[in-house]
Amino acid sequence: MFLVNYNYMLSFNSRLNGLVKQKRSWLCVGLDMNPEALGDNDLSGLKDHSFKVIDATRDLAVAYKPNFAFFERWGAVGFAWLEEIVSYIGKEHITIADAKRGDIGNTADQYAKSIFDHFGFDSVTLNPYMGSDSILPFLNRKEKGAFILCRTSNRSAKELQDKMVDDEPFYLHVARLIGGLNKNDNAGMVVGATAPEELQRIRDIAPQSPLLIPGVGAQGGDLSHSLRVGNQSGIGLINVSRGISFVGDMSEKSIHSAAANYVEQMREILR
Amino acid sequence: MFLVNYNYMLSFNSRLNGLVKQKRSWLCVGLDMNPEALGDNDLSGLKDHSFKVIDATRDLAVAYKPNFAFFERWGAVGFAWLEEIVSYIGKEHITIADAKRGDIGNTADQYAKSIFDHFGFDSVTLNPYMGSDSILPFLNRKEKGAFILCRTSNRSAKELQDKMVDDEPFYLHVARLIGGLNKNDNAGMVVGATAPEELQRIRDIAPQSPLLIPGVGAQGGDLSHSLRVGNQSGIGLINVSRGISFVGDMSEKSIHSAAANYVEQMREILR
Repeated sequence: MFLVNYNYMLSFNSRLNGLVKQKRSWLCVGLDMNPEALGDNDLSGLKDHSFKVIDATRDLAVAYKPNFAFFERWGAVGFAWLEEIVSYIGKEHITIADAKRGDIGNTADQYAKSIFDHFGFDSVTLNPYMGSDSILPFLNRKEKGAFILCRTSNRSAKELQDKMVDDEPFYLHVARLIGGLNKNDNAGMVVGATAPEELQRIRDIAPQSPLLIPGVGAQGGDLSHSLRVGNQSGIGLINVSRGISFVGDMSEKSIHSAAANYVEQMREILR
Repeated sequence: MFLVNYNYMLSFNSRLNGLVKQKRSWLCVGLDMNPEALGDNDLSGLKDHSFKVIDATRDLAVAYKPNFAFFERWGAVGFAWLEEIVSYIGKEHITIADAKRGDIGNTADQYAKSIFDHFGFDSVTLNPYMGSDSILPFLNRKEKGAFILCRTSNRSAKELQDKMVDDEPFYLHVARLIGGLNKNDNAGMVVGATAPEELQRIRDIAPQSPLLIPGVGAQGGDLSHSLRVGNQSGIGLINVSRGISFVGDMSEKSIHSAAANYVEQMREILR
């Protein structure tokens, strides 16, 4: 049972591997708490809903990924809610701060303090544009991880990420840069399910790196391909946000059933 | 006197141009409220200091740029402080949310709501890696502006930003992308003073775009070159953070004197 306990002696990637094996799940539940999706612009309604989504998916999720935008929108009150969420999730799941931060070294130190120490997240999403000194402050504790944007799931991702540099697309240069920073077995990447070939190319050059794969569901990415390629060597976590949090009548039962359906499909695909 | 008033009929760039001309200042005061720099790890001491920096520089600064990392570090309490700061600055200066955000379209909408509506900032810094759909939600109100990272001031900026694409460095492709999104005269760029040649190349292809130029002072960028090139056609705001906020004995007098010294040098250079 030690894999469930929060063990600081394990690297982030080892802990993730252990948790996935033990739960036989690759599901990351994205907490994009959009008031328009709930049809309720009242913060207390949204807060209750966020706790409901967590309770409804504890047995199925490996990770939870709150997206900071949906909390920052409310300012200080939203950040207080985010503090509660991390504590409500507890220590038996991986928490991913979907913050996409990226700043110069001394500022990145402050963001690392915010995300790892103040909020207590296990990992964070980062933007690579400013290079290694904006990333390294998040990688010096092996039990804390980072998923760095590599090839994203949005339509305009290609505008810059696919530019050709020395006969290879830019995002592969990003993948190599991240590979070079992975001294503590804790540097992962974000790769959209909407970019199936790109996912394969990234997995080929980074066989062990944990991948966080959004874009299945509302954005139209293919679950089967993403899961197979993402997990052909290392771990590929599949993130689902809207397809779980705001499904059907949005009751705990509907949410659990949507998450269970995803996990059953995943187990079938990777049988 | 109308230029001082907050006039919603002006585009962000027009308002910035007017304010610079009226004040004969190109100074942006960066509010990086680092407890280590103050030598005081107490939040109320830092808060008092942030208000002191604002009071000491009102007559000299065109813009204030709080860096979100130094507020997020304290969680909800830090965000409440940031709310107070924006209101304390008031409407007679340009406020720049140094948040370096970048996310897919529906999430970028939430960040825009956070920064422009909840906090009430005039402008924001953004990261271009995810392409135009991560930027456009911040550009659809002409009175609100964005400064998008182009060539940054940190040492590792070159790792990705200088990669050659079709015989031109990547950051110039970013500059062209941003130029193409500037339909409302409100899209600017961040270019480090530590990259003097790069600054000239960016100014050449974006003659009117507002530039936000950090890296003078602690990071070693050249004030004279940055100011001249930055302002040869459009406006180039020079950001100074540590060199003003934490100077000398950190009294209001020392802070005012450091800011006045910068502004006098600027007026001399652009005489």
